[in-house]
Amino acid sequence: MFHSHVEYLSPDTLNRIHKSSLDLLEEVGVVFRSRNAREVLAEHGARVEGDRVYLPAKMVTSLLEAAPREFRLRARNPQNDVEISPSSFVLAPGYGCPFVLGRSHTRRRATLADYEIFVKLVGSSPHIDINGGIIVEPHDVDPLVRHIWMLYLTLSLSDKCIVGSSMGETGAKDTIEMMSLVFGGHEEVQNRPSVISLINATAPLCYDERMLGALMVYASYAQPTVIASMAMAGATGPVTLAGTVTLQNAEVLAGVVLAQAVHPGAPVVYGAASAITDMRAGTPAIGAPENAIISSVGAQMARYYGIPSRGGGCLTDSKVVDAQAGYESMMHLLAAAVSGVNFVFHAAGVMDSYMTMSFEKFVVDDEICGMVKRFLGLRGAGQEDCFTADEALATDVVRRVGPGGHFLLEDHTLKHHRREFWSPGVSDRSLLEVWRNLGKTDAFERSEHIWRERVAGYRPPRLPRHVDDRLRKYVETRQQELGVKDLLLSG
Amino acid sequence: MFHSHVEYLSPDTLNRIHKSSLDLLEEVGVVFRSRNAREVLAEHGARVEGDRVYLPAKMVTSLLEAAPREFRLRARNPQNDVEISPSSFVLAPGYGCPFVLGRSHTRRRATLADYEIFVKLVGSSPHIDINGGIIVEPHDVDPLVRHIWMLYLTLSLSDKCIVGSSMGETGAKDTIEMMSLVFGGHEEVQNRPSVISLINATAPLCYDERMLGALMVYASYAQPTVIASMAMAGATGPVTLAGTVTLQNAEVLAGVVLAQAVHPGAPVVYGAASAITDMRAGTPAIGAPENAIISSVGAQMARYYGIPSRGGGCLTDSKVVDAQAGYESMMHLLAAAVSGVNFVFHAAGVMDSYMTMSFEKFVVDDEICGMVKRFLGLRGAGQEDCFTADEALATDVVRRVGPGGHFLLEDHTLKHHRREFWSPGVSDRSLLEVWRNLGKTDAFERSEHIWRERVAGYRPPRLPRHVDDRLRKYVETRQQELGVKDLLLSG
Repeated sequence: MFHSHVEYLSPDTLNRIHKSSLDLLEEVGVVFRSRNAREVLAEHGARVEGDRVYLPAKMVTSLLEAAPREFRLRARNPQNDVEISPSSFVLAPGYGCPFVLGRSHTRRRATLADYEIFVKLVGSSPHIDINGGIIVEPHDVDPLVRHIWMLYLTLSLSDKCIVGSSMGETGAKDTIEMMSLVFGGHEEVQNRPSVISLINATAPLCYDERMLGALMVYASYAQPTVIASMAMAGATGPVTLAGTVTLQNAEVLAGVVLAQAVHPGAPVVYGAASAITDMRAGTPAIGAPENAIISSVGAQMARYYGIPSRGGGCLTDSKVVDAQAGYESMMHLLAAAVSGVNFVFHAAGVMDSYMTMSFEKFVVDDEICGMVKRFLGLRGAGQEDCFTADEALATDVVRRVGPGGHFLLEDHTLKHHRREFWSPGVSDRSLLEVWRNLGKTDAFERSEHIWRERVAGYRPPRLPRHVDDRLRKYVETRQQELGVKDLLLSG
Repeated sequence: MFHSHVEYLSPDTLNRIHKSSLDLLEEVGVVFRSRNAREVLAEHGARVEGDRVYLPAKMVTSLLEAAPREFRLRARNPQNDVEISPSSFVLAPGYGCPFVLGRSHTRRRATLADYEIFVKLVGSSPHIDINGGIIVEPHDVDPLVRHIWMLYLTLSLSDKCIVGSSMGETGAKDTIEMMSLVFGGHEEVQNRPSVISLINATAPLCYDERMLGALMVYASYAQPTVIASMAMAGATGPVTLAGTVTLQNAEVLAGVVLAQAVHPGAPVVYGAASAITDMRAGTPAIGAPENAIISSVGAQMARYYGIPSRGGGCLTDSKVVDAQAGYESMMHLLAAAVSGVNFVFHAAGVMDSYMTMSFEKFVVDDEICGMVKRFLGLRGAGQEDCFTADEALATDVVRRVGPGGHFLLEDHTLKHHRREFWSPGVSDRSLLEVWRNLGKTDAFERSEHIWRERVAGYRPPRLPRHVDDRLRKYVETRQQELGVKDLLLSG
């Protein structure tokens, strides 16, 4: 990691945003659509009127202190564990998209088969750390058991860390049960962060019952949640970035406070996922540069509170995998990286303003993730080492080569180039003649080829037979309990 | 501008790079292929052997002190003057490309007509500050007078700041003469920075006669130059980034020292334009993420010496305007911006590893420039103001709207959205149905439409008749002196 990163705002401005948010929480309050949540908050000193909860500043700041600064999320394969901390840059794939980009650049409803392909693409990515979650919404599976099947596929096809279900109390409980089967019991799960999940506020200043149910289950098991605000400046948030950032801060704090009230020390990530509204189109504009500011300031607020932050992603409004998809995606991932964002959802595959996932864009974004990680120096030894060794400064080599010489055949070149230079997958750097002979492809065409090869060659990591048996049995039992006869819906 | 930017390396590492570069300059020396340059340097204490010049550390550090921290570059229209300083982010278009991307994505040799189109695209850009230079190399014009015609077209079609010719002493003198005709005499030019030019070292550790001739003319008139190193790590520079950054630093310092020896206080910009070599393709890889590191560290070195820096650009190796062109271009411009780079060449239009300029990519890059400037808060009042006004924090509006409400019809929304939200040109954010009805375009197709409209609608700013007459007469006289009969070469 580099020596220092972007700080968008001054400490004074951070203080003002903090104080204004506390005022909102205390004086305007937050609607919590869950009796349980309201009761827990009331026990900790909140004033409740109907479904609205007024959170005193003192209560907020004191509960905030319980939130941990960092935690280690365990994977089925311990080599894939990840640290989520104020210095991490952890990447998770697209989340929540109903559609998939099909042939002829036309979107279609996503299926479980699509979901499986994405799990394999994440599993084979050298840059993406976390698998699963609602990468796409598999419409051919009964909604009652979708989350169970997504979890089963992710756990059986990948041994990276995974994203849990936020489908209310039920989704969270199913997640905890299945993680217990993988890690050897509830206690094993409760003792260590074993799954991370996404909890969204509903702007302005609401939390719905489904999200609260999931949040409270996860917090009670001390499992990490990303508590995110997704205000749309100009629609569900003030049109000014400062206003939306302040609203966002109030919403995130409200969720964090509830998690700490349920279980002091429950790991949380500060989620800055707000965006602007395109006032001409009347749509969310997720690729807009303003969102990079919101995410950057979100990371600063998270540092202000001493908890890890979430923001950025390979975000675009483009309906095709074109130059716009490229520049918007790079902007949001790189801006997050240089702003010290610690955890990223939507790091690969998402397009069309969160509506569509694309296999081709996943591969393009995977390349972007690799480039941004290389910029951060996140490979092998820290970047600083690469700059301080005598061998790196290479003055002896320059002395030997001298003015007008070249370095192509130097031992130093042969020795270091593989480690020093990141190796591209999608990006073309060939001579024009070579590129012509290879068929004059663009990045989209190359990505289509790459994802098909990656999926065809994917070998799932070994899942112990007895664990697989238990998971399958759990899936079966739950299907019966829920009265679901056929996994795949017809039509 | 935001509160603080990326510092890639620690102060200790900067010191080491500085000291190692001084060692190279003193012990290995630099080849200056110009007797005049060697004589000036010898007068200031350098040891000369053949064409190699050994620069003592004391001489280097003492001459460096004369280089100004910032300067104001004047334009024909004073409203277009730009500050080039440690806090500026000034953008200039592509430079030096022999080809233009024509129909069917095939490149062809550039002409003066292409050059004229690019001058109009820069002239109509809301984001690009500097016009002219060798945007493309017009092959249909006699090489003896190419620079004169490019200068005339730029001066007559645009009233922004301009880039001068580096075609040796002759090119620089023609530039000075023409700027004198525009600004009212040599003294007027000598008194204020009136044109900026690009001087490239030849790695490793050489300066050729042409570049030195231009540098010495510009310095003698106290005109600013960007002194750039373009080492290719692994080929003309050490394969390690630290090694290439150290070599780059030595080369830039050598040029800066010469400029100061010619004229103490001549404005200079520290140019970090080195890149890596793709070891598989054997080509320069200008889109590689390593180059963003080189540019970021270059900006730090420039701050270390207290002079403005040049780096970044919308750089790509792609042969087409695709996702790769988008993500590589955004990476290099945004990384430069967040690293505190102050001046950017190649901010728009360049592709194909510096070989080709594209009208369509110019428009795409102009969009990228707008997005990056928006992220930096470079519009209207500083970004910090947008975050500190009570009106911006908007807590009153949130109070009024309350939990579950919306902001669409608030006066606050109507009042602020135009100023707060950057307005896209190329980027599509429409609803899927609207996008379909508009022809399912991608960014390339929209950009083609946009550049044609911009060029068709371009109205050149007024150039006083007497100035135009003088410039035309100068062009004519020089053509006669140089024995050039026909402006355009046949065939």
